[in-house]
Amino acid sequence: MNAQSIQYADRFNGLSGSAIREIFKLLARPGMISFAGGNPSMSALPDEEVSEVAQKVLKEDGKRILQYGATEGYPPFLEVMRDYLQRHFGVDMTKNGVLPTTGSTQGMNLLCSALINPGDRIIVEDPTFLGNMQCMRLYQAELVPVRSDEDGMNMEDLEEQIQRTHPKMIYTIPTFQNPTGRTMSLEKRKKVAALAEQYGVVVAEDDPYHDLRYFGRELPTIKSFDQAGLVVFLGSFSKVISPGLRVGFLAADEGLLRKCVIAKQSSDLHTALLNQAICAEYISSGRLEPHIAAICQSYKSQLETMLRGIEDIDAFTWVTRPEGGLFIFAALQEGMDALKLLPRAVDAGVAYVPGTHFYAGGGHENTLRLNFSMATEDKIKEGLRLLKTAL
Amino acid sequence: MNAQSIQYADRFNGLSGSAIREIFKLLARPGMISFAGGNPSMSALPDEEVSEVAQKVLKEDGKRILQYGATEGYPPFLEVMRDYLQRHFGVDMTKNGVLPTTGSTQGMNLLCSALINPGDRIIVEDPTFLGNMQCMRLYQAELVPVRSDEDGMNMEDLEEQIQRTHPKMIYTIPTFQNPTGRTMSLEKRKKVAALAEQYGVVVAEDDPYHDLRYFGRELPTIKSFDQAGLVVFLGSFSKVISPGLRVGFLAADEGLLRKCVIAKQSSDLHTALLNQAICAEYISSGRLEPHIAAICQSYKSQLETMLRGIEDIDAFTWVTRPEGGLFIFAALQEGMDALKLLPRAVDAGVAYVPGTHFYAGGGHENTLRLNFSMATEDKIKEGLRLLKTAL
Repeated sequence: MNAQSIQYADRFNGLSGSAIREIFKLLARPGMISFAGGNPSMSALPDEEVSEVAQKVLKEDGKRILQYGATEGYPPFLEVMRDYLQRHFGVDMTKNGVLPTTGSTQGMNLLCSALINPGDRIIVEDPTFLGNMQCMRLYQAELVPVRSDEDGMNMEDLEEQIQRTHPKMIYTIPTFQNPTGRTMSLEKRKKVAALAEQYGVVVAEDDPYHDLRYFGRELPTIKSFDQAGLVVFLGSFSKVISPGLRVGFLAADEGLLRKCVIAKQSSDLHTALLNQAICAEYISSGRLEPHIAAICQSYKSQLETMLRGIEDIDAFTWVTRPEGGLFIFAALQEGMDALKLLPRAVDAGVAYVPGTHFYAGGGHENTLRLNFSMATEDKIKEGLRLLKTAL
Repeated sequence: MNAQSIQYADRFNGLSGSAIREIFKLLARPGMISFAGGNPSMSALPDEEVSEVAQKVLKEDGKRILQYGATEGYPPFLEVMRDYLQRHFGVDMTKNGVLPTTGSTQGMNLLCSALINPGDRIIVEDPTFLGNMQCMRLYQAELVPVRSDEDGMNMEDLEEQIQRTHPKMIYTIPTFQNPTGRTMSLEKRKKVAALAEQYGVVVAEDDPYHDLRYFGRELPTIKSFDQAGLVVFLGSFSKVISPGLRVGFLAADEGLLRKCVIAKQSSDLHTALLNQAICAEYISSGRLEPHIAAICQSYKSQLETMLRGIEDIDAFTWVTRPEGGLFIFAALQEGMDALKLLPRAVDAGVAYVPGTHFYAGGGHENTLRLNFSMATEDKIKEGLRLLKTAL
């Protein structure tokens, strides 16, 4: 017998890896203008600062940083995060704990591990982030999509689906949603927290784009309205410091957090201490706020440039107008298929992600997601010209 | 409803987190001499070198290091590892691929994800590494213990259990095993590879202590005898560079590796690039080999000191005499209970791990694991004196 005869676990049935991975391979072609990823712009990555900070923390606490650490986190990181979560995200840290995660990707994985048996239902926004849908599918959850309105999940549909499917979890990206860029209104945030309490459902509030706001006023997190301890807040430094460092965090009720800690013990034992130390020092030294202000200024212009360029393309019938984040979502005329058109766009030198991948049940072939953070304003203009021709 | 009403997933049934975590909390007491952990000694952690190396890689490739990377790994790390695996571990890299993992803890997790359905059997050495048993239990595997002899797993028992239980995987730590310190003989290594092929079972060869050899001659890996592509090699830089960096690696047949990649996409997307870059540069700059030579010299003396000290304690009836690694395993007189005696030892100022935790089926209450890398030679002598009194 050999490797061909290996029988893989059932959780892989019907799963073939991230659909957009294949698209990302095309991006390596020289000169390709990419609206496809969700990456920070290269100029937003603070490589010199991170080098300085790394030197400082290794000098001051190098032995502890290189040794094994507790699954629960590196103490200086936890101290910074408790303050940051309370002050910045309105999380009541007298009632909640925080766990460092290896990117917020791991946060979702630990939550699924804590809660999901095969066949359990998870309510997701329609459309929603592909990567976390893959995670849920590996845990053999049944995904229940809920309609998305301009101001977030449709609350009637949400309550109906809760009553109908008795879900274990509601997954939402309330701020500058991926892929739509939409933001859930204040009233709906309160309502989601209330529904969680009423029906005893855990809410996973995934908020990685929170600080990338270019217009309008900041809204309180769903977690800030959580009286029942049923909302889990997932955050990340990927969009505001560096994705390559893989540092995220999860704030939750202590009972649920404990299950996540046990799952993390055998996931990666702990998040790398150097990476936790770099993020802690980056925040406590006062570098984070001016850095966010600087990148927001640039991303704002990129968003405006993209929205202006889109107006020139007749094939688009609608487009979202986000107040922040990294993405806009758009629809082509009925009958056009963004998946089938992609090779033509790529041949022309521009890439996007077909919207259909973000819908739990597929369909919506005329939609697509466009990222505006990776390309410079000149490249955005050029890319949209190429896209117009291709369409 | 509130957090008290949350229904957790079935995988947590009967699981309460790492049993030795509670012991580790005791170690924080001032003056405690610890034979309990599996940590490198503080002096073995190259903090100044890591700082230099971090600066260098961030200067040369900082933007790429801070950006998102591929799940498959950071290209310079992969290049170094292909050479290192071929040359150092005898892995045929024309037939296998390598995946960076967030510690080898993650390697085991990805393997279980790829292979294990609830109720599947995994053969483990008796005793074996507690952390990976917890991982297997979270995947709801049934653990099948196989008797350990002085020269590794008992091959008759192994074949009998394969025939009886049709396992999905055989888990072994062939070199300086945790917790026993024992090393599998050359003949048995060949036999394990042959049994894997004969019965179509995946072998997980976990070899984190490979380079910590103080006596005797290096043995080829089981993976080096793998003709069928059924042996998976799990390695780690935790014992030879730094555990806090969380960098391990997994070498396997491309088909199995692909499943691990898919599982990793939703585990942590990718291992932090800075950490991969640091390990790659640490190796390619020629720092690793002299560093290993230096730490082995010191660990060898610590092992000798511990074995000499043990001889003075009448309560011990036998003790393993490893050629390397971080642990010795010992038995007290029949009727003595290392778990019950632990509080007394801790009160006296010395800690160990009761051996019963390492047996899949419990029992063996008179055994215990002693680590010799964390304490200096003077502390080892003092700790054993305290232990003698406590026993």
